[in-house]
Amino acid sequence: MHKAILFDLDGTLHNRPKSLVTFFRDQCERFSMNVDLNRFVELDNEGMRWKDEVYEQLVKEYQLPLDPQQLLADYVTLFPRFAQLYPDVEHTLEQLKAKDYKLGIISNGKKGFQRAVFNSLSINEYFESVIISDEVGLRKPDARIFALGIEQLNVQPEQALYVGDQYDTDIIGSRNKGLKAAWKTNEQVDSDAHFQFSSWRQFIPKLQQLEGETWSSAKQK
Amino acid sequence: MHKAILFDLDGTLHNRPKSLVTFFRDQCERFSMNVDLNRFVELDNEGMRWKDEVYEQLVKEYQLPLDPQQLLADYVTLFPRFAQLYPDVEHTLEQLKAKDYKLGIISNGKKGFQRAVFNSLSINEYFESVIISDEVGLRKPDARIFALGIEQLNVQPEQALYVGDQYDTDIIGSRNKGLKAAWKTNEQVDSDAHFQFSSWRQFIPKLQQLEGETWSSAKQK
Repeated sequence: MHKAILFDLDGTLHNRPKSLVTFFRDQCERFSMNVDLNRFVELDNEGMRWKDEVYEQLVKEYQLPLDPQQLLADYVTLFPRFAQLYPDVEHTLEQLKAKDYKLGIISNGKKGFQRAVFNSLSINEYFESVIISDEVGLRKPDARIFALGIEQLNVQPEQALYVGDQYDTDIIGSRNKGLKAAWKTNEQVDSDAHFQFSSWRQFIPKLQQLEGETWSSAKQK
Repeated sequence: MHKAILFDLDGTLHNRPKSLVTFFRDQCERFSMNVDLNRFVELDNEGMRWKDEVYEQLVKEYQLPLDPQQLLADYVTLFPRFAQLYPDVEHTLEQLKAKDYKLGIISNGKKGFQRAVFNSLSINEYFESVIISDEVGLRKPDARIFALGIEQLNVQPEQALYVGDQYDTDIIGSRNKGLKAAWKTNEQVDSDAHFQFSSWRQFIPKLQQLEGETWSSAKQK
């Protein structure tokens, strides 16, 4: 039985793709920018690229009469306010808390900024430990940041489960430190396949779900 | 509602990892080879490398008094007899057949050899179309091999679902031709993560499964 559950933030609890789109629509309006949303999302590359480069590129590509630094400052200040959770996250945390799991966060991200995103999600009350890579000078998949996480919750690796969406960073990383791992497959994966299964016992039920009502009627002779 | 379902063979219907291990144990015994099974599996690289190279490497590494060509010939002849299905495959195919789905196979593989593997699985009766890449001179993810598959079943792309375990080859490939796609996550993925989920609604049930009986008792205060 596990005693602690630690979570990644972006793409796991924080619906960053949705937050980003909502924020950028708002930013475009406020700065009267006519920029393709998809291009912004593409340049962002799932948060892999920091926004200074992204805005510099956008200003160049779209010949915007704007200062990239001003857009960056606007992003740093306002993006956290647009941060939103995936559906059912809060209810899940409540249930885990009720079962006495110790909960923690281990997130790669910029000091201050990532903390602001976390605070904006209004889930502080559930967590005993919140680690941001830039604050501690370690980044996932470094085993030492997972060691820090379980140390702060006062549990052994094998008593902890790590939940994340980046396979190499989160799953391989936490497994290397001896934690159990749960993989949240991201929306990219979900949207390319119409469904996913790991044993054939799951296949028919998932197919029926995809087919909807028609399974029981149309195919019957 | 879909009219046709097409399947990848190795890693999807055919439990190739298990077949390979069973075959190789037998081969080691017959040739009195003392070779680490894991090394063989590693060199095979999930079937990405054809066996001539694998056996040449093994003979060199283990200084075996054997001819790599003889081991290869043995593999080509006998491996297909060890081919076995994943659990529940046959029952699934029966149910799909009963619902009047047209079923097909699109498999990358060597002429003759891959056909022998397929025949050995004893599921011929379920399929109206069986395409082996080497026989038709096209390989997944080439859109034309998916076009051929649906043509043989006489359906439109959007009426067909493709089921496979290789994300780029099977899922991206079939999606590019306009088919629906179902992704069978392979055992490698399953074994590194303790479970997998795509929406938070699935999290607690899967966690309960992982925790087993203890969820309802031990954590209750």
